[in-house]
Amino acid sequence: MGRVTTREAVLKLGGDAGGGARRSRDTLAAEEPLEIRVAGKQIAVTMRTPGDDFDLVAGYLVGEGVIRDAHQLARMRFCGDSACSGPVGLGGEWSSAERIELGRHETGRIEAAHDTYNIVDVDLAPGTALPLWSLDRNTYTTSACGVCGKSSIEAVRANAHWSVETDPLRITAEVLYSLPKTLRGSQKLFSKTGGLHAAGLFASDGTLLCVREDVGRHNAVDKVIGWAVRDGRLPLRGHLLAVSGRASFELVQKAAAAGIPLLAAVSAPSSLAVELARESGMTLAGFVRGESANVYCGTERIVVHQP
Amino acid sequence: MGRVTTREAVLKLGGDAGGGARRSRDTLAAEEPLEIRVAGKQIAVTMRTPGDDFDLVAGYLVGEGVIRDAHQLARMRFCGDSACSGPVGLGGEWSSAERIELGRHETGRIEAAHDTYNIVDVDLAPGTALPLWSLDRNTYTTSACGVCGKSSIEAVRANAHWSVETDPLRITAEVLYSLPKTLRGSQKLFSKTGGLHAAGLFASDGTLLCVREDVGRHNAVDKVIGWAVRDGRLPLRGHLLAVSGRASFELVQKAAAAGIPLLAAVSAPSSLAVELARESGMTLAGFVRGESANVYCGTERIVVHQP
Repeated sequence: MGRVTTREAVLKLGGDAGGGARRSRDTLAAEEPLEIRVAGKQIAVTMRTPGDDFDLVAGYLVGEGVIRDAHQLARMRFCGDSACSGPVGLGGEWSSAERIELGRHETGRIEAAHDTYNIVDVDLAPGTALPLWSLDRNTYTTSACGVCGKSSIEAVRANAHWSVETDPLRITAEVLYSLPKTLRGSQKLFSKTGGLHAAGLFASDGTLLCVREDVGRHNAVDKVIGWAVRDGRLPLRGHLLAVSGRASFELVQKAAAAGIPLLAAVSAPSSLAVELARESGMTLAGFVRGESANVYCGTERIVVHQP
Repeated sequence: MGRVTTREAVLKLGGDAGGGARRSRDTLAAEEPLEIRVAGKQIAVTMRTPGDDFDLVAGYLVGEGVIRDAHQLARMRFCGDSACSGPVGLGGEWSSAERIELGRHETGRIEAAHDTYNIVDVDLAPGTALPLWSLDRNTYTTSACGVCGKSSIEAVRANAHWSVETDPLRITAEVLYSLPKTLRGSQKLFSKTGGLHAAGLFASDGTLLCVREDVGRHNAVDKVIGWAVRDGRLPLRGHLLAVSGRASFELVQKAAAAGIPLLAAVSAPSSLAVELARESGMTLAGFVRGESANVYCGTERIVVHQP
């Protein structure tokens, strides 16, 4: 596993340097590329903070509509470039670290090869359809993203395994307000680096179930959803997802793919995020700060006691 | 051109709703997909805020190492899906709006077709090498991003057209401090939506030359650099780039590809952003807030008067 933070020399100007400059050291969030392969074929490269990489890959595959159950992951492993060039990977022994990575899903096998942890190769279980983009990435991108907001939304809805529309979740405004505070309180790395996004999965009473930090907010969400799918928890009916930044189309898409009925963001949503959430029947809240929030759709799930 | 902002119904909880809830309307940053094609072939889809799309595409191509001069763009045009399926596009008349889009680079031609503005097709000038990824996107992604930070940095440096290492730029700490203030003061949309990233290009005395806002920070940077390349300004020796958020590897890469010797970010840099900036000989400042900043590398370009 790579480093999660690094220490770098820095010249501090002004502030506590008293208007001048002084040499110091700063803790930075680590950023490294991760290559995701399915059956030996590269399907994506993402710049992420190392750690929970199998969760990241599993969550990514949920978001892309490839899997919805841990058993569809026959095998996940880190590998060196040369070792994984074919569709069938190396055999190998389990190590204790790999057992921990795999968690309770021992239906799969994990093998490490060489000293690189920036490639994860996935074998899908028999019966799990190979996605179109493994054959032609360009075709897939077109069909998934379309060329307008409307077609993007239609593509997401056509790929949906679950509907969140009928989820009977109800929460109080107080639970909604509590999410960013709980999330921030659980961010181990943010206070050190000031530079990490976070995503947290909560039960309907506001209990935090899983929090992940990453330089990329889509990665933080993938890691949380990947943790959930590998733990056998999908669809995430009655659950809440909170993110530290803005709510984009992509994050709403990932939440919908995991069956999550409510997304709360500390900052603003985009137009297309609201459109997709509304079309999906999801509750989307933005600017959740202190004792206030804006709810853009799915307002029936928020119980407000008028003063 | 699509909408830059949208208005959405919102239920406001707490805050100025006095602990209860009231119905209102909110202005949101628009987000729409943009498909980028070279000679009719899709090479990327990005979720962006509509506007300055030709700049976005030009800047994207600079960042990918495809072009470094406006004359390498033989033709750019918006087009409908069916109209642009082949390598040769529709002919058509100039419209005044398209003339404005193209600006002074009338070496190219722009034609609009149908009513969609979410696809831009580019024809490269003869002699501009077709990039590898137009033939095999996966191969390209591997070579560009590598599988570790070191190989990512090597790939960027191997593709570099210009070196920023020898740029003799010197600025005072006061000019550095002024960049985020000037940038924020020029963000027309942020105050309305609270949800847009910004990038600004500055002269060495802190004069703002170009500012762009977008839901994606990489898009905001692409739009600024695209404006510059189309205006015949590359390499951007002696210039400063400021961004409203964090500094990632990708943003340092884009600045380096445009020959910019200094990148200033309001928030934290990642480890790989610092490594790439240092290897490239770029000055990277983070946490530029009020009268203070952290300078991670290239400190010789910042002139500090010790108190």
